[in-house]
Amino acid sequence: MNLIRKMVNSYSEEDAQFHYELKKLLNFSPRKINKYKKAFTHRSIQITDKKGIPINYERLEFLGDSILGSVIAAYLYKKVPEGSEGYLTKMRSKIVSRKHLNELGKDLNLIRFVKSNIDQAKAGDNIHGNIFEALIGAIYLDKGYKACQNFIKKNVIIPYVDIEKLEGKITSYKGLIIEWCQKKKKKYSFNTYEDSGNETVKHFSVKICIDGEQIAKGRATSKKKAEEQASKRVYFAFQKQINLT
Amino acid sequence: MNLIRKMVNSYSEEDAQFHYELKKLLNFSPRKINKYKKAFTHRSIQITDKKGIPINYERLEFLGDSILGSVIAAYLYKKVPEGSEGYLTKMRSKIVSRKHLNELGKDLNLIRFVKSNIDQAKAGDNIHGNIFEALIGAIYLDKGYKACQNFIKKNVIIPYVDIEKLEGKITSYKGLIIEWCQKKKKKYSFNTYEDSGNETVKHFSVKICIDGEQIAKGRATSKKKAEEQASKRVYFAFQKQINLT
Repeated sequence: MNLIRKMVNSYSEEDAQFHYELKKLLNFSPRKINKYKKAFTHRSIQITDKKGIPINYERLEFLGDSILGSVIAAYLYKKVPEGSEGYLTKMRSKIVSRKHLNELGKDLNLIRFVKSNIDQAKAGDNIHGNIFEALIGAIYLDKGYKACQNFIKKNVIIPYVDIEKLEGKITSYKGLIIEWCQKKKKKYSFNTYEDSGNETVKHFSVKICIDGEQIAKGRATSKKKAEEQASKRVYFAFQKQINLT
Repeated sequence: MNLIRKMVNSYSEEDAQFHYELKKLLNFSPRKINKYKKAFTHRSIQITDKKGIPINYERLEFLGDSILGSVIAAYLYKKVPEGSEGYLTKMRSKIVSRKHLNELGKDLNLIRFVKSNIDQAKAGDNIHGNIFEALIGAIYLDKGYKACQNFIKKNVIIPYVDIEKLEGKITSYKGLIIEWCQKKKKKYSFNTYEDSGNETVKHFSVKICIDGEQIAKGRATSKKKAEEQASKRVYFAFQKQINLT
């Protein structure tokens, strides 16, 4: 209670709300709140600082893009020891593709924070990926490289990076799990339901049971995504058995 | 003495020498010596690990390139607050250009560590830059991001990155200093001499005096570089006065 009062006293109400939402998103308490404000300011706002330098997310996007690239490079280096330099380069390009970054930004609903003077429809799809990168830039300036690694791990690597899928070996984890259960005569169930909680974006949860035992859960912004996420977890839990069959 | 004996006992004599040379180069004591060996192994050596994965510097080059890019991005972001995203991108490209990286690798004489089955002349100039990047990859795996930042600061940013020069505003610091001294009727002298010490590569030192007072020193692998380095230091010492005239 004291903490909340303190926050409200030092911040405007709008800032306090922004801080609260950011903290939920980032899983840590942001300190340099202005960096995050900048990360969500579109150039159409046309504001400048005391020195006349424009305040918008474009420079942070440059920074975040670079940090993201190096975190993904280090992840791939360790994850795929047999991958050649060419393979690693190709995989990283897929992960940090414009399309993929736009999806990531959309899934986190970052657009809700954006201040802009142009129509969202006019801004185009790329704004989602751009502010995702800018957010990583702001995290770097606020908390350093390690915090970026944690954020990227949680929001890019765990839910999305899937070497087998990116390589095109597995197109659907759900399909793979069902096929395996049928072959092995295992009873399976996918219990999928809407689970938006307090969030403005609709969310779905799923629980997968095999032979009566709950094996994995998933939660995402679409039924399909939640099911794929949970199925992937089942896959990794039974990976050896599945790969042998 | 005990430390040296311990090192000699656990390492082969060749490894101990490699460790000693590396430590001088890196300014810290490397732990994962095999990562550095890999960083200096050319693919022509054709060795593999237990799993049959080739041991050479190509994967480390991918990793180091990415880490270098992000360290330079963060440096430029902070150093040039007025630079647009396009400007920052262009400046980074210049700093991490193939030509520039080859120069960096050559100046550190990294080629002395390389194991290869092909003629050095055949390997081409790019090997110098490639192993420079691979070395950064090895430092990352051995000591983490912070150690890379320190290494890059010492070996790329301080001696080479010079925003004014990269922008083409200043082509020679020596020329600038001489011009300024003549204009201001200051007595100046460049005392340049060979100063290789125990190093295998020839080095030169220079002392610059203005009005009888020693202002700056420089040391590098050529007279010209040493003089530019020292002149740059004089420039920064008198920057305000020089820019006003």
